[in-house]
Amino acid sequence: MVEPQLREPVEDTAVGLDEAVRGEIVAAVEAEDTNALRAAVDRLHVADLADLIEQLSHEQRRILIAALGDDLDPELLSELHGPVLTEVMELIGPRGTAEALSQLDTDDAVYVLNEADDEQQREVMAELSVEDRLMLQSGLSYPEESAGRLMQRDVVAVADFWTVGRVLQYLRREADLPDRFYEIVVIDGDRRPVGTVPLDRILRTNADLPIGMIMEPAEHLVPVDMDQEEVAFLFQQYRLVSAAVVDRDGRLAGAVTADDIADVIEAEVEEDAMLLGGVAETDIQETVWTTTRTRFAWLFVNLGTAILASAVIGMFDAAIEKIVALAILMPIVASMGGNAATQTLTVAVRTLATKELTTANARRVVLKEALVGAINGVVFAAIVGGIGFLWFGDWELGLVFAMSMIINMVAGALAGVMIPLVLDRFGIDPAIASGVFVTTVTDVVGFFAFLGLAALLLL
Amino acid sequence: MVEPQLREPVEDTAVGLDEAVRGEIVAAVEAEDTNALRAAVDRLHVADLADLIEQLSHEQRRILIAALGDDLDPELLSELHGPVLTEVMELIGPRGTAEALSQLDTDDAVYVLNEADDEQQREVMAELSVEDRLMLQSGLSYPEESAGRLMQRDVVAVADFWTVGRVLQYLRREADLPDRFYEIVVIDGDRRPVGTVPLDRILRTNADLPIGMIMEPAEHLVPVDMDQEEVAFLFQQYRLVSAAVVDRDGRLAGAVTADDIADVIEAEVEEDAMLLGGVAETDIQETVWTTTRTRFAWLFVNLGTAILASAVIGMFDAAIEKIVALAILMPIVASMGGNAATQTLTVAVRTLATKELTTANARRVVLKEALVGAINGVVFAAIVGGIGFLWFGDWELGLVFAMSMIINMVAGALAGVMIPLVLDRFGIDPAIASGVFVTTVTDVVGFFAFLGLAALLLL
Repeated sequence: MVEPQLREPVEDTAVGLDEAVRGEIVAAVEAEDTNALRAAVDRLHVADLADLIEQLSHEQRRILIAALGDDLDPELLSELHGPVLTEVMELIGPRGTAEALSQLDTDDAVYVLNEADDEQQREVMAELSVEDRLMLQSGLSYPEESAGRLMQRDVVAVADFWTVGRVLQYLRREADLPDRFYEIVVIDGDRRPVGTVPLDRILRTNADLPIGMIMEPAEHLVPVDMDQEEVAFLFQQYRLVSAAVVDRDGRLAGAVTADDIADVIEAEVEEDAMLLGGVAETDIQETVWTTTRTRFAWLFVNLGTAILASAVIGMFDAAIEKIVALAILMPIVASMGGNAATQTLTVAVRTLATKELTTANARRVVLKEALVGAINGVVFAAIVGGIGFLWFGDWELGLVFAMSMIINMVAGALAGVMIPLVLDRFGIDPAIASGVFVTTVTDVVGFFAFLGLAALLLL
Repeated sequence: MVEPQLREPVEDTAVGLDEAVRGEIVAAVEAEDTNALRAAVDRLHVADLADLIEQLSHEQRRILIAALGDDLDPELLSELHGPVLTEVMELIGPRGTAEALSQLDTDDAVYVLNEADDEQQREVMAELSVEDRLMLQSGLSYPEESAGRLMQRDVVAVADFWTVGRVLQYLRREADLPDRFYEIVVIDGDRRPVGTVPLDRILRTNADLPIGMIMEPAEHLVPVDMDQEEVAFLFQQYRLVSAAVVDRDGRLAGAVTADDIADVIEAEVEEDAMLLGGVAETDIQETVWTTTRTRFAWLFVNLGTAILASAVIGMFDAAIEKIVALAILMPIVASMGGNAATQTLTVAVRTLATKELTTANARRVVLKEALVGAINGVVFAAIVGGIGFLWFGDWELGLVFAMSMIINMVAGALAGVMIPLVLDRFGIDPAIASGVFVTTVTDVVGFFAFLGLAALLLL
């Protein structure tokens, strides 16, 4: 049994937003005290300020942004998400947004602009310098969630015949380098990456050696249109901290670093979790109205499948009229099958995402799931058979209860693993629709097996 | 509506295990052709080899490990997980394992040893040198999933009065440095970190400056017993690539780097997803028997709650006997409430984990959920009321159906957000038990409201 895990209490001061500072800012917002507000905000990391802003009400947000005025840190925009980001851009206006964007790294500016709605985007674009506008347009031209969107454009790249000493000199003199970098990319005459050199290796090496001699061959190059999920997989699999991005001709286009990847990993797993639960990713930030509409869709699909299951029950109304116990016990059969199916489904969806479940072991996994379902089915058949007999004093009813339990738990196990496998094969994200399909199967099979067997054997 | 997302097909050659190489290795294993096997394995990254080994059957694994013999890369062990890791340690024996461990970084060796069962651990410890044994014992003394387990021991640390030139000299001459590092920690006379210097800044700075002048103040120090989830949050929040770890006296103990964090983030979100689904994290690797037993526990809990819900139905057997339509429609009420609750629950669990849901906005979120539940409840009440009337030609039945739908969808929304909030307040991981509690609430409330109202109004 998976035991409840007692987590150690975490001091809020250690990580993230300080409760006291949060209280101070909220109080200053309520009092509309601009000076106190600025003083408190100054002590916050911009990422924590973004979190705080996401937790405020619309009115509080308006006051805070107005109080910050021109002192607003441009980085704040790149730390906000979804509806709150759009709202803040609205508050600071197209000119303020454009000014902030011009101070951000390309990848961050592209992220912010991408979140803006169409009208905002047009207005902000109009306020940008021609140079910035072209750069952002080129950034937006890469597909969403691709490596091109994640990468920084500025990369330190040197020719393979340069000596370590010359590289060091270049780094010391060149002003226009990225803010932070972890490796140097070695390129050939066509700007194609041929290798990378981690900075610590440069620091440890004799200045006379050519850089080409100490580089690592460029093994893990990222194509500019690679999906960010694949990029994250690459970073995790090969424990990368930085990777060069190449355009369609194999030329160096930029670099992705590990700090961007942490966000991608969380976002991707989060997306799956939210999809499985039938909600949108930005759910908590959305208005009551947007949330209601989004959730309505899945609830409506669920209503359809629930009616389907009820129609199955309706086929056997005569049996239920004679033996009311059938109505009492039938939800147990459906529920146990549904639960067994959800367990299998969870494993299948996650292991498909992490590539632990592949064509190489699919057959073995399906077989295993069927076996697990059958064993637990037999065990629970014995238990519920006994319960059925004790509750209603009818051993035939107990037998029908037990038999349908085995059938539905095997059906649940098979549906739980087969449905995501099939969806994945057709290129549909298995997280999205599996849950609905799978519980439809266990409801329909559960009711049909239980009531059908009862109609055959008990009437 | 969340639309099915068509994913672009991913070329398997680009990332991860190459299908052709996989086939080659499996064929060589089947043929027990040691030479072909070694040649194919040589072309694989050790992380990909680990993935492949996890997908093989027990027998195939035995043949592969035997063929590799002494050529087995020690890093392979640190890339394997759970039951497969234990199995491989069994295959190479305590001496082979000890030899591999002595070649690994401390954090990796501690990870491997921690996965071993008690007997294996004892046997391997006995084969280790005294020095290695002490180091591993000290590593194992940190709590599981703490920063102490993640960190490397070797850190490049220098005094704040050293000049950049002296640091460069030290790096060039000192042989005993970590394999890879991204920043240098500046310490005071008591070995307490006072700041950090990213390597690129050292490369860009004049050699005469004291390092203390170019360092960034040590803001994000990680206590050695901080939970790994908190460490990951720190890295994500402040976009860190490396962080110094300090012992209980504030002295430098090691460093955590971003490549370790990617695994932590995935593992933590994965853990939540698996807990929500009622399965163990290593499920796919476990034997049929272990999987069956682990899943049995949750199924058994589910049986208990299903019986509880059935007992509620049993209270109204007289009503069902008279109006069979009640038995046909009641699963719809339960199912819709359960689905609404699952949506709310998914959002609550995820946003609690990412600290988007906190005490600051809990009241607002609960209110919002109740409102969303009520609005969708009213809409679906209208729909199902109509369906009830059309299906059974009884407007009173439709009314009861509709009223119970509103009650259950609001109950589901409230349970979905309140239960995780309460569990979290008591320090219990909200992912673990919420699902069972929540659907119990919607089953019991759904059946009670529908059948109870029917008994009151229709009989």
